[in-house]
Order: sequence, then structure tokens, then C-alpha cells
Amino acid sequence: MKIIEGGVCAVEGILAGGSRKGKYGLGILYTGKSTATAVFTSNNIKAEPLKLTMKNLKDGKLSAIIANSGNANCFTGPEGMEDAQRMVELAAEGLSIPEDRVAVASTGVIGRKMPMNIIEPLTQKVLGNLENSPRGSRRFAEAIMTTDTFPKEFAVEFKLEDGSTARIGGVAKGSGMIAPNMATMLSFITTDVKASPSQLKEALRTAVDETFNMLIVDGDESTNDMVILAATGKSGKIDDNFQEALNLTCKELAKMIAKDGEGATKYMEVKVLNAKSQKDAKRAARAVAGSTLVKTALFGADPNWGRIIAAIGYSGAAIKEEKISIILEGENRKIDLIRAGEIIASGDSEELKIARDLMKEDKIRIIIDLATGEYTAKAYGCDLTYDYVKINAEYTT
Amino acid sequence: MKIIEGGVCAVEGILAGGSRKGKYGLGILYTGKSTATAVFTSNNIKAEPLKLTMKNLKDGKLSAIIANSGNANCFTGPEGMEDAQRMVELAAEGLSIPEDRVAVASTGVIGRKMPMNIIEPLTQKVLGNLENSPRGSRRFAEAIMTTDTFPKEFAVEFKLEDGSTARIGGVAKGSGMIAPNMATMLSFITTDVKASPSQLKEALRTAVDETFNMLIVDGDESTNDMVILAATGKSGKIDDNFQEALNLTCKELAKMIAKDGEGATKYMEVKVLNAKSQKDAKRAARAVAGSTLVKTALFGADPNWGRIIAAIGYSGAAIKEEKISIILEGENRKIDLIRAGEIIASGDSEELKIARDLMKEDKIRIIIDLATGEYTAKAYGCDLTYDYVKINAEYTT
Repeated sequence: MKIIEGGVCAVEGILAGGSRKGKYGLGILYTGKSTATAVFTSNNIKAEPLKLTMKNLKDGKLSAIIANSGNANCFTGPEGMEDAQRMVELAAEGLSIPEDRVAVASTGVIGRKMPMNIIEPLTQKVLGNLENSPRGSRRFAEAIMTTDTFPKEFAVEFKLEDGSTARIGGVAKGSGMIAPNMATMLSFITTDVKASPSQLKEALRTAVDETFNMLIVDGDESTNDMVILAATGKSGKIDDNFQEALNLTCKELAKMIAKDGEGATKYMEVKVLNAKSQKDAKRAARAVAGSTLVKTALFGADPNWGRIIAAIGYSGAAIKEEKISIILEGENRKIDLIRAGEIIASGDSEELKIARDLMKEDKIRIIIDLATGEYTAKAYGCDLTYDYVKINAEYTT
Repeated sequence: MKIIEGGVCAVEGILAGGSRKGKYGLGILYTGKSTATAVFTSNNIKAEPLKLTMKNLKDGKLSAIIANSGNANCFTGPEGMEDAQRMVELAAEGLSIPEDRVAVASTGVIGRKMPMNIIEPLTQKVLGNLENSPRGSRRFAEAIMTTDTFPKEFAVEFKLEDGSTARIGGVAKGSGMIAPNMATMLSFITTDVKASPSQLKEALRTAVDETFNMLIVDGDESTNDMVILAATGKSGKIDDNFQEALNLTCKELAKMIAKDGEGATKYMEVKVLNAKSQKDAKRAARAVAGSTLVKTALFGADPNWGRIIAAIGYSGAAIKEEKISIILEGENRKIDLIRAGEIIASGDSEELKIARDLMKEDKIRIIIDLATGEYTAKAYGCDLTYDYVKINAEYTT
């Protein structure tokens, strides 16, 4: 597997472009005659573009995605649905494709009418700059940013079992309000493998469960999240190698989102080992990564394992105090905090000194061995900082 | 029902006292030959004093409570259990009561050995200052404070159905790390009604479910929470009037804890009306009060109803967008944000201007009418501020 340049445009035949005006952005992705699938937010309130995309993707056929930032087009009723429909029409007309092969996505403030007077000219502009190039992918990635501080792209080339070379490319936007089951997160992934919609669905669900759904910024879950996977079918057949490459793509995009959490200064991975069940492993990892007390301790560079223990305890995972081990891992070193229930890093111990120093690094991995079974899970998160409060206290309606 | 002075000592025969030394505090409550019940944290990791109190309270008999602040005596193993046992012994010896009639509680940092060299002399000191007076209750309330900024006491006098006068008194400590199902929260409640342990249990469970369990500061749940209810039996029999007074006592103590949330500048009540089920009402109320995005909007005085809508959506409660109404209520005014799915407070509307002004008040009530059924619930919370981050980033192990 080889990491390559080009984002979504690393895949042959994919055209991308984007443009911004003030706080609004618009991106278009042309995928030709591709098969596709999507995963949507589990929030009971879904934005209008999601409802329309769900309908248009039912047959598993996709030719284009149009996405905007700055306005979520959520809780906007029939008028919002008309605006989403209008965006689909604009893309379909411009690209000479059927409307029901267009997906539409939005991200931004909830409950405001779409500024179609800005969206329409932006769409026309972007229709004129679509290209199969790293620049096209980058423009798209930048167009869908909201409080993101950098565009998120990833692409990989790999061999299928039948010997053919295949590619996967993706873009994402995220930042705040990310929680299990995806929140204010958009990701669009392209590939050239040959696959039926149901094969793609299975593959995307598997990848999302382990990656985007294990990503926690603030525990809130948005009304607008979606991940779309589109396959052009120009390379070989979908197989396990594809799954592995897709998992990697989703994981790398999820990590970029965690690193770019609103106001975040530190990135955290929580790895749970030897849990009694897969569910236990996941909920323990998520509870620790999502704990505001762990997140503030991370910000304060405090190896406060008591808060980690408390979060494991309330996660609901089966535990035995005397079996738990907790290890902190930094760039080039790791240190035991708890070893099989025994407190290692405390008082004047050398371990606590090292742990305090290690916590100053900007990427921290917390490894938790529950020693009650054989299941593993990872969660991705970040610290909770003054700037998170600032960004979210000042982001006005 | 009449609100009275005296906290736990409002009840005849109850003796209380407390003292502090540096960051440690110790309080003792003597309840005579009382029946008692307790509710404990649902965290899978329970501090040593909880384990011992569970054992000692099994027979429903209680004569004293000894509680310390500054050290949670959690994840401290057999040595921690010995220390908890030693605290019980000290109280039992000093009060000439059986050890199995003593409850013990701790709150503070996890994973540190109890400073028994400080706890023992403090205990002797407190044993010498026990009294049935407002001062005794206040000393106890102050002794169990950690990051609390004020002591929490409440007492009420009421008539039982049989005509006799009865009283309930309570103290609590809370502040950060409060979540549904109680977190780093201690509350001790006394009464003079006559009741069996199982009657008390039923009554306490009912009250806690609607009050302490609807209290959210940061969503983390502690290893040390407990609420104890002790009844001396010197007044009339337990009845519905008692339940009402107990609900009020727990509610008022819960509200004090919410107001004293770490770093909080504003208090918030979330009231959900006309939900399809009791569970739906509770989870919608909790999701909104617990949303970090709603909490930061509260801090920023931003009437961002989009975040409220998003939280209702991910709470899992049954909703219909076109039926939801949201009202903001301040001290002397209320304003519609959403009325049956229609956005009222937006753009240049007078309502949005009023809502912005109203959000500057320090007690805000968010009323959500789901119009899908007939169930109601309330949750209690506070804003998320720079100071919350500061307190928790700097609170070292």
C-alpha cells in the first residue's frame, strides 16, 4: 500500500473543484457513472440535503456530489428542501447528468435559509473549474471547510488480489461537534474498484464503525453528517485488500479531524486491549477519549490516571480493578501508570516524573489493558482548551 | 411546606460537626438509632468507602456517617479498605456505637493513599464538636467541600397526613464531574419520619431519579457518589407528603450543585414537555443540558437554538420537526424561539433581539415542547466556561 497525492482526484476520471465567497464555500465532485453508498448521521433531526441524498442514492448510482459550507440547510422545512433540490438541479444541468444521480451535502449554521444568491453563482464558477488534479481535490477540500484550520485529503494506491492496481482517494471536513456516530463531519471517498452498491455499503459500514465513529471531539452529534463512497469500476473487483485500504483512508481522515478539533492543541489516541467484548472495547475507548476531565487533563499535561480509571468505570465495560493496566505512550517512549491494578506513577516515583514530561508532547497515546478478554478498539480525540470555549461561545446564530 | 434553617440538624437528635486542615476536611453526622438507605454511583469502579458502606447499610440500620474530602480513597486496594475501616472504627469508638452502623464516604483525588495521619486527629477534633445546631450542619457541609465554592444545605418542615409535623434536612457537595446517575456528589439527608428501610429506599430512589440524576455538569461520572437518607422515626409515618418534601429537598440541593458547577457563571434548567414517554422526556432534557455546544452558547449568551435542536435530535427521543416548540425563559420574561416547527427568532426579528438580551441573565430556563405525548422532565445544568477548563487543566494528580 502506497500513500499518494491527489486526494479524491487520485482516482482516474474523477473531477473536482471548489470556490469560496466570504464564509460560504461550494465544492463539486464529478464521479462519472459510478456505484455509490453512504452513511448518514443517526441524529433524529436530519438536514434537508441529507433527506434528498438518501433518496437519490437509493439505487446506488451516483454521478456527482455538490456540497456547501456556511449554512447547514437544516430545520429549514419545505423551503430548505427546495433549495437542496435547486443545488441538485444546478449540478445536473451543468454536468448533463440525471438529477437523481446527484448527492447534496451542507454544513454550517442550523435554521437559516440558504443564501441561494451566493450559492448559484458559486456553483456556476465551480462548474467551470472542475479538473482531475491535486489542485481540483484541494479546492474541493477547502470549499467545504467551516471552523477547520486545514483541508483534509488522503489517497492510497494498492494491489487487488487479482493483481490489478487500484486507488482510493478521500476528502473530509470536521473540527468541532464530532462524536461517535459521526457529527458535523463530511467525507467523500472515491475509488476505481468494481463493486455493487451492497458490497460498497458493507465495506463503508465496516470502515466507518472503526474510524469516524470512534472519533470524539465534543460529544455532540450533528444533523448533517455523511460519508459517501463512490466507485468508478475501472479497476479490478472489490476484495479484502480494498477493505484494508478503505479502513486506512477513513482512519487517516478521522485522525486529521481529531487533530483539527476546535481549539485543540493535542491529539490523543485511546487504545483498549483485551476487553471482554468488542462492544466493551469500543465503549471504554470512547468514554476515555470523550471524558471532559481527561480532555482537560490532556490540555493541562497532567497524567491524571484517576480520571482515566473513572471513565473506564462509567463506560459500562466489564472490568476488574486488579487487572487493569494503563500505559502512556509518546513519540519515542512509553511509561506505565498502572500495572495490573498496581499504581506505578505516584508520589515521588520516577514514573510519575516521566509521565508528566511525556504529557507535554502533542500526540499522546493512552493504552488501556483490561485483561478480561481479547477484544481491541481505538478511539481518536483531542484536548479541551480555552480556545474550544472561545470558538463555541462566540460562534453566533 | 416551610423552608427552615439548620440543614441536617433541623431534625431533632441529629448531631453534626466538621473541620478542615489544608485541602482535607472531615465531617461526622450522628443519627442515633435510625433506619437508613442509600443510592450509590453506577460507575463500575467504586471507591473503598462505598464498598464498606454498602455492607454496613445492608440491614438498613445507621447511627453515624463519617465523610472526608481531599482524598477519594478510590483504586487504593486492600490498604484503602483498611483505611475506610479505620475511619469507621474511629467514629464507632468515639460515639460508642457498633461499627456496622457507621457509613463512610470520601471525595477527592483518586488513587492516593489516605493521609490517615491527618484524618485521625481531625476525627478526634470533630468528635468533640458535634452539636444539634445550624452551626453543626454548616461545619459538616463545609468539611466535605472540594472545588465547591459554597456549602450546600437545605431543610423543610411539613405536615404528614396523620397531622404530625415532620422535618427533612440535607447537606450536599458537588461541583464538577456531575452527570446523570450522580457523579462526585455526596448528599446526606435526615428526617424524623417513621419508615422501614425498604420504604426509605423506594422514596429515595424516586427522588434521586428526578433530581440528582437529572443534574449535569460535565458528563463524567464519579467513582465515589452516594446519597444517604436516615430516618430517626420520632415523628409520624412516611407518606406522600414526605415524598413531596424529599423531592423538594433533593431538587434544591441538586440546583445548588448545578449553580456551583466548576467555573460556572450561569445556571440552566431544561424542561421538556409533552414527550412520548418518560424516558424520552428525560433523555431529551439531559441531552440539551449536557451538550457542550449548548453549554458554551449559554456562556456566550447566544440564543443558538440550532444547537438545542441538534441535541434533541441525537438524544434519541421521538420527535417531529414540525411540532417542536422552544421557549427561552428568564427572570421576568419569556420568548419563543421556535413555535410548532416555525422559526420565530431569526434574522432581524424582534424575538431574536429579546432572546439575545434574555440570554445575558444568569438563570436561564429552556422549555422544549415536543408535542408528541404527555410526559415531562427537567434537567439541571450550567455553562461551560474558561474557568472550567482552567480548574480542570490545573487540578493536578
